[in-house]
Amino acid sequence: EELEADLSAATISKKQLKKDARKAEKAGKASQRQQQQQPQAEEADLFAANYGDVPVEEIQSKAISGRSWTDIGDLDEAAAGRSVLIRGSAQTLRPVSKKMAFVVLRQSMSTVQCVLVASADAGVSTQMVRFATSLSKESIVDVEGVVTLPKEPLKATTQQVEIQVRKVYCINRAIPTLPINLEDAARSEAEFEKAEQNGEKLVRVLQDTRLNYRAIDLRTPANQAIFRIQCHVENKFREFLFSENFIGIHSPKLIGGSSEGGASVFKLEYNGQPACLAQSPQLYKQMSICGGFGRVFEVGPVFRAEKSNTHRHLCEFIGLDAEMEIKEHYFEVCDIIDGLFVAIFKHLNENCQKELETINRQYPFEPLKYLEKTLKLTYEEGIKMLKEAGTEIEPMGDLNTEAEKKLGRLVKEKYVDILHVCNCIT
Amino acid sequence: EELEADLSAATISKKQLKKDARKAEKAGKASQRQQQQQPQAEEADLFAANYGDVPVEEIQSKAISGRSWTDIGDLDEAAAGRSVLIRGSAQTLRPVSKKMAFVVLRQSMSTVQCVLVASADAGVSTQMVRFATSLSKESIVDVEGVVTLPKEPLKATTQQVEIQVRKVYCINRAIPTLPINLEDAARSEAEFEKAEQNGEKLVRVLQDTRLNYRAIDLRTPANQAIFRIQCHVENKFREFLFSENFIGIHSPKLIGGSSEGGASVFKLEYNGQPACLAQSPQLYKQMSICGGFGRVFEVGPVFRAEKSNTHRHLCEFIGLDAEMEIKEHYFEVCDIIDGLFVAIFKHLNENCQKELETINRQYPFEPLKYLEKTLKLTYEEGIKMLKEAGTEIEPMGDLNTEAEKKLGRLVKEKYVDILHVCNCIT
Repeated sequence: EELEADLSAATISKKQLKKDARKAEKAGKASQRQQQQQPQAEEADLFAANYGDVPVEEIQSKAISGRSWTDIGDLDEAAAGRSVLIRGSAQTLRPVSKKMAFVVLRQSMSTVQCVLVASADAGVSTQMVRFATSLSKESIVDVEGVVTLPKEPLKATTQQVEIQVRKVYCINRAIPTLPINLEDAARSEAEFEKAEQNGEKLVRVLQDTRLNYRAIDLRTPANQAIFRIQCHVENKFREFLFSENFIGIHSPKLIGGSSEGGASVFKLEYNGQPACLAQSPQLYKQMSICGGFGRVFEVGPVFRAEKSNTHRHLCEFIGLDAEMEIKEHYFEVCDIIDGLFVAIFKHLNENCQKELETINRQYPFEPLKYLEKTLKLTYEEGIKMLKEAGTEIEPMGDLNTEAEKKLGRLVKEKYVDILHVCNCIT
Repeated sequence: EELEADLSAATISKKQLKKDARKAEKAGKASQRQQQQQPQAEEADLFAANYGDVPVEEIQSKAISGRSWTDIGDLDEAAAGRSVLIRGSAQTLRPVSKKMAFVVLRQSMSTVQCVLVASADAGVSTQMVRFATSLSKESIVDVEGVVTLPKEPLKATTQQVEIQVRKVYCINRAIPTLPINLEDAARSEAEFEKAEQNGEKLVRVLQDTRLNYRAIDLRTPANQAIFRIQCHVENKFREFLFSENFIGIHSPKLIGGSSEGGASVFKLEYNGQPACLAQSPQLYKQMSICGGFGRVFEVGPVFRAEKSNTHRHLCEFIGLDAEMEIKEHYFEVCDIIDGLFVAIFKHLNENCQKELETINRQYPFEPLKYLEKTLKLTYEEGIKMLKEAGTEIEPMGDLNTEAEKKLGRLVKEKYVDILHVCNCIT
């Protein structure tokens, strides 16, 4: 009910909504009719045990069946011929005839096509086919079936196998009309443009709707991949620094005074005394170094009461911070940062191809390129490059954002696609 | 100056303070006298280059010498005969004669004894011996020397080797009297008791002083070890869950409403609107599960405006949280928790012996014991054990803290020292 009341905020076209509502009503009536008018047919279904809604009590820690579910992402050609059990969200439901239907199940970034064909040999009845197509999108569904290889490559799913369904159970039905249609939410700009060229108008899910129904929006493959990449970056950040003798710490976030000048603070009351939220772990990292830790890092929230609306100003973000004792030269820090970034880039390229490709489908980006040994430019070399390109910088002056970006482009042109220049420009 | 003004807050006895001050004054005068009255002696020192204060400019990224510093913790018998360079804090300075002195250097949890003996062969002058003993405690010192094996085991240091000093340079001098004496701060209760029995009164560093001078208190070996153990626990928590397909997330801490009933919230203003600090990542973990992540964990701060002063009530702490989809039985969660704790315990026992021993010296504890496959008791079995021991629990009632503790003791007695009972008591 709350979801429906909120629907006005969604950007689904009213036409679509009405259409969906009519469809749902029709399906509801049809299923009622079925139950009332076809008791004979129901009784006649020899395979009634092979499908149906699983009552809530059944999945509330009643029994341990010992069954094991295969991840949809793991279904590949090697699984052909195997009988598998999978659980996923019903992404698309496509009835072909009374005797045949397709159901695409999704689990995280992966989708697989499940094929239902009524046949006594397979234990699949026409009622079972009807049951499968009566499911609402995003319902959680268990499918048991045999993995087969399709004759032609599948375009609509990530997995290049099909499941010949033997059993299908609904664990939890979604409401008939969701505020976000996942296919709409997962489209790239290119798809929108292509549709427009064809005179077709696709539904766009806007930012507010995405945030209002975050739990649904999170299900798009790109979001699934982005969160996984974030976790990989943090893991590698920690792992690399730990291997370089850094210790992970957690510094206080509720503090007695502002921790850094320049940024605005969130103030609050702490047992009758004024307090604020940490804008940076800086002070605590430095205390750790004075405290004899030598090298520390922290991954944690940073709070800044910023009123600027740019992508560089956030009220709350996760900071990946590091601090180290320098023995004799600040190049020691540069070398660590260099090694850190190369390690992270390398890890992502080697371990997150699937995630990167998934993000790339919705939000295209250039591939990550870097040198094993990072290019180091001195300040003078950088200034010289800018000067030659017509940008004048005051002697010993700071580089502003514009100049920084330009230098990045110049470096990329000159050194063939090197995206990463270390902060060693003194 | 600030440190001195604050000394009244410290618990160092006034007697000790005066004594220290007198000593420092004397040392200062002596060094002045030395510099003023013995120019000949200074000039006559052929080995003047082998010791001295390093001027600040020298260590400000002037040059990369290519030298490498050995960690004090790595100095073992295998290093005997080798020439090493180490950097540490001067923990104790013990002049034996004009020609001989001992300096103990500390780095994190490790200490090593450095021996200075004036000898032309070694390039060590009496002036160098005097220089070394003129250093104030906690000064940062570089020592170059040859590793030798002592005739008898060393009691005062962790490393069982000595350094025959060839060169000694002070990187940064500490003020003569510090608010916390590290030896005082690192004592165990047993040492205090023993001293008292001998009629000796040792200085106790109280909690307030420790917190007021946290950067110094952090240097005690036990604190060094505790922070390292914390980091290891977090690493293993993440590593184990990640290997079980959990994804690490970071949920918002600044939120629009309270995230959990029962606990008090910190309120603040967010751009003119009421907001509060998250008391739990619960809601966001659940949204992640609904969002299709399947399994998530989070390590991050939790804020509770608690007014209770117990060790179970904290205003800010780091929560190690996990949330997972259950397929059919909550034992799936129990098994993950079980595996997680065993993995953490195992990791600590196998990789953190040095840290555990270091903590044990100041804060003795019983060794960590656990079963590879965790003992599972049903609720009924637990209640039966309590009943037999004379504690009556209402049928199907919750166990209160007292009963929980008692059951822990009973399990430990019955199953020979098993500390870990899984939360599977339904």
